[in-house]
Amino acid sequence: MAKKSALQTARAAYQPKLPSALWGGVSAVEGEPTQSVADQEEIKALFPNTYGLPVLTFEKTSKSAKSHDAINVGVILSGGQAPGGHNVISGLFDGLKAVNKDSRLYGFLMGPGGLVDHNYMELTSEIIDEYRNTGGFDIIGSGRTKLESKDQFDKGLIILKELNISALVIIGGDDSNTNACILAEYYKSINAGVQVIGCPKTIDGDLKNEMIETSFGFDTATKVYSEVIGNIERDCNSAKKYWHFIKLMGRSASHIALECALQTQPNYCVISEEVEAKKMTLNEIVDDIAKVVAKRAEAGNNYGIVLIPEGLIEFIPAMKALIAELNDLLAKTPDFAEQTPAAQREFVLNNLSAENAATFASLPEGVARQLTLDRDPHGNVQVSLIETEKLLSEMVGKRLKEMKEAGEFVGKFSALHHFFGYEGRCADPSNFDADYCYALGYNAAQLIKCGVTGYMSSVRNLTCPSVQWIAGGIPITMMMNMERRHGAMKPVIQKALVDLEGKPFKYFAKHRAEWAEKTSYTYPGPIQYFGPTEVCDQPSRTLYYEKGGK
Amino acid sequence: MAKKSALQTARAAYQPKLPSALWGGVSAVEGEPTQSVADQEEIKALFPNTYGLPVLTFEKTSKSAKSHDAINVGVILSGGQAPGGHNVISGLFDGLKAVNKDSRLYGFLMGPGGLVDHNYMELTSEIIDEYRNTGGFDIIGSGRTKLESKDQFDKGLIILKELNISALVIIGGDDSNTNACILAEYYKSINAGVQVIGCPKTIDGDLKNEMIETSFGFDTATKVYSEVIGNIERDCNSAKKYWHFIKLMGRSASHIALECALQTQPNYCVISEEVEAKKMTLNEIVDDIAKVVAKRAEAGNNYGIVLIPEGLIEFIPAMKALIAELNDLLAKTPDFAEQTPAAQREFVLNNLSAENAATFASLPEGVARQLTLDRDPHGNVQVSLIETEKLLSEMVGKRLKEMKEAGEFVGKFSALHHFFGYEGRCADPSNFDADYCYALGYNAAQLIKCGVTGYMSSVRNLTCPSVQWIAGGIPITMMMNMERRHGAMKPVIQKALVDLEGKPFKYFAKHRAEWAEKTSYTYPGPIQYFGPTEVCDQPSRTLYYEKGGK
Repeated sequence: MAKKSALQTARAAYQPKLPSALWGGVSAVEGEPTQSVADQEEIKALFPNTYGLPVLTFEKTSKSAKSHDAINVGVILSGGQAPGGHNVISGLFDGLKAVNKDSRLYGFLMGPGGLVDHNYMELTSEIIDEYRNTGGFDIIGSGRTKLESKDQFDKGLIILKELNISALVIIGGDDSNTNACILAEYYKSINAGVQVIGCPKTIDGDLKNEMIETSFGFDTATKVYSEVIGNIERDCNSAKKYWHFIKLMGRSASHIALECALQTQPNYCVISEEVEAKKMTLNEIVDDIAKVVAKRAEAGNNYGIVLIPEGLIEFIPAMKALIAELNDLLAKTPDFAEQTPAAQREFVLNNLSAENAATFASLPEGVARQLTLDRDPHGNVQVSLIETEKLLSEMVGKRLKEMKEAGEFVGKFSALHHFFGYEGRCADPSNFDADYCYALGYNAAQLIKCGVTGYMSSVRNLTCPSVQWIAGGIPITMMMNMERRHGAMKPVIQKALVDLEGKPFKYFAKHRAEWAEKTSYTYPGPIQYFGPTEVCDQPSRTLYYEKGGK
Repeated sequence: MAKKSALQTARAAYQPKLPSALWGGVSAVEGEPTQSVADQEEIKALFPNTYGLPVLTFEKTSKSAKSHDAINVGVILSGGQAPGGHNVISGLFDGLKAVNKDSRLYGFLMGPGGLVDHNYMELTSEIIDEYRNTGGFDIIGSGRTKLESKDQFDKGLIILKELNISALVIIGGDDSNTNACILAEYYKSINAGVQVIGCPKTIDGDLKNEMIETSFGFDTATKVYSEVIGNIERDCNSAKKYWHFIKLMGRSASHIALECALQTQPNYCVISEEVEAKKMTLNEIVDDIAKVVAKRAEAGNNYGIVLIPEGLIEFIPAMKALIAELNDLLAKTPDFAEQTPAAQREFVLNNLSAENAATFASLPEGVARQLTLDRDPHGNVQVSLIETEKLLSEMVGKRLKEMKEAGEFVGKFSALHHFFGYEGRCADPSNFDADYCYALGYNAAQLIKCGVTGYMSSVRNLTCPSVQWIAGGIPITMMMNMERRHGAMKPVIQKALVDLEGKPFKYFAKHRAEWAEKTSYTYPGPIQYFGPTEVCDQPSRTLYYEKGGK
């Protein structure tokens, strides 16, 4: 039988703090009509029923809340786990019960597929109470089915009608919220009588904008990664004999790596967006790291910490070009797999463009070979199988050997490797994420009560104490633009990459030369729930600097 | 510049709790003369000056402490990092200052080599205050030089005399404490006037006995590993699609894996000592895991958690025999490295005994090949380079394919891999380790004041509140027996392996069938410093069960 840990038991009693606007009676204040961030005409044409809606802000009202009919609501967890998902659901549950104690909440199981396939369970207070303030998505499970087709929408509507559900809350990342909006538009267009509300989830931190200050889970996950990075830094600084190459989850942006760098002050951190902007080659990154290693070696420091974002390879323009041509080439060569490794290598080198062939030849053979193997079902190379942390340290080692021969490196270089991802996605939410998620869910119930659709639950002003947070709703179309996906232009929520002009990156850029040369490690330690507020309730450094912190 | 995290600042103010016996005036109560755990005649002959000493227990005395001359003491951190080392040193510092405020503490740098090579620094209160309650060994660094030879002892004595040091505290594992005792015996035999006191350190947990209930660092390190294992369990139970194979540091014993299993209740945990006792082959372990995977798949659960101790390979009798014969064979075959891989494989298969050749042939080719490469400077295979977690999951996958063809496996099997070690060795010490280490250090100062040598600092009764802990000293010879090392019989501290008749293993063995089949994960969460005592101050499960907990 599963046994509760002492911390689980203690945290079950934690009551997340709500923004004061959501205490008791709430009135919704409408802003001006909104526009999408770009491509207004196209977005408007695609979302005639959900475009141009106003931003909503909730305010406390002294009027006692009018009685409201009970509401049946469905909830879906979509995509990768993020700390706090259970609190979104418990906040939603409590919010719905506050509207009317007979309201009911249904969870669709194992992601959006549960809606399409009619797999669900009712979430009663007994169940909800088991999951308050816990990590994971195990209350109803998650999944990666994309809600995209009319057929799926129609199938889902059958079970929604059967359960008398009038609103659906989709907790997911940028893609899932885009699809939530498409679903909202569709249900509105056929007068289905089902509102759709999104919630901003992803540890990657790439779903954010002026109105959505951060996605939930980023705070907790980066604190867990920073805890173990800090521990490794301390080990590194005690043993003084290894370079640790640490890869961090996050394929589409480097927010996680940047946040961890701000928290732990490592000797080097690759930011993919910068690599892309500067059109750096893999060799240039390797050279750059090798120089830092050599510089530290001069001072007798043959140890250090390098952080690497998981998605780096796809941000290196030369690698991107190589991978694209390889995908095309191998798709046209069905008998490739039957040839010997040597013949494969020769074939690839002979048939690639000169530039890509040169990139291919510059890679360690194992990595080059990896790029020609293991296609995914679409025939594309599986970049995630490349162990970037080992690739980089191997190339740095090789470069240092050359430098040694040239008298440019006087030290030793011994590398260890780590990859952190699964360690943080399901951690118990920090106080910040526990409060933020609960507020997002409770707030979603208010949006449902208002009768709106195609909105994302929004809680802002997050660097202030949680009672001062601003709650409301943002029309999802407002965050959209048109982007090419699988060969066609699609309306999508604009992904937030690391802004090289933004304050978090600027802070990093300002200090990194010093962190590279000196040993400036900071040790954040484990997330604390019960101690002094400066220990327990700090937002991420990214959010802190973005909001003007020094 | 290094920046202190909020937690670092808050923890700096923590005052570790001392056993009440060490408050104020202390008197030492002598027990009966002691004997070594085995080989009494040999040990007595080797340690004429430090054998048969009594156990010392400190008791509070109402007599006010007599004034005592200032003492100069040296301290050494030996071997791998363990959380709490800085607190041993700060406890020692405070203890020495309590004896006489003019006492001085010198730290020898980067391990025992600092003593031999005369690298040291004085540890002033300003320095000590920077390191209170922090993880890592970075205050003076650590190293793996073994203090074994008379030449080293004599070189060390020069600097000890120069600094007027009359006592040396060596903080280390079983080998370092064995050497501390040899040093104590030597200095005593030549009337060097230098006492030597040991402190029991190792995250591995294999330095313990009746009088040393646990080594420091084990508590914190296993809590950090259990935190991330719990997080991965929660992810596993949310995504429901991966088997996570998690390797845990600890080559010479499986205490870490067992403790983590007790804390997190995974589906499978290999205990090396059991593998050895049951003379299991690698294939039998693989079969066993594959059966658990298949059983869970029957219930639709294609996911799970497997814990693997780092040292497993060397505990499998068939692998041990294979490795021993390979080491001999390859030492006699100097041109082996120049042959092709295919020729190497054929040579090995043709020249091993039938039994070992069969074991070699049963291994995945990559692993078999690994065993024939990368000899260490002594010509031995580097077992630590074998990625046991990948080896096992690959073999389990292969076995499941066979079972699928035979209709014995109906599910899917997809594996992910992790290795945790460096993440925990330098974590901020838990309250338990912070208190325990401080007490060990403070107590060491009392042993020094008593004038004894060849003792290990001992703090017992550790499952009671720290004020009730029993402080004293244990003659190191008492823990010794004779063992074969590098071909010769040597006096060494008996290593504590996992006791298959002990209560921690019995608890695990009683529950593991249920944990295997059902999903019984427990999520310990991060170490807490400020919350309720049942969250912050629990000893390890191992210690709890060993001391009779249910």
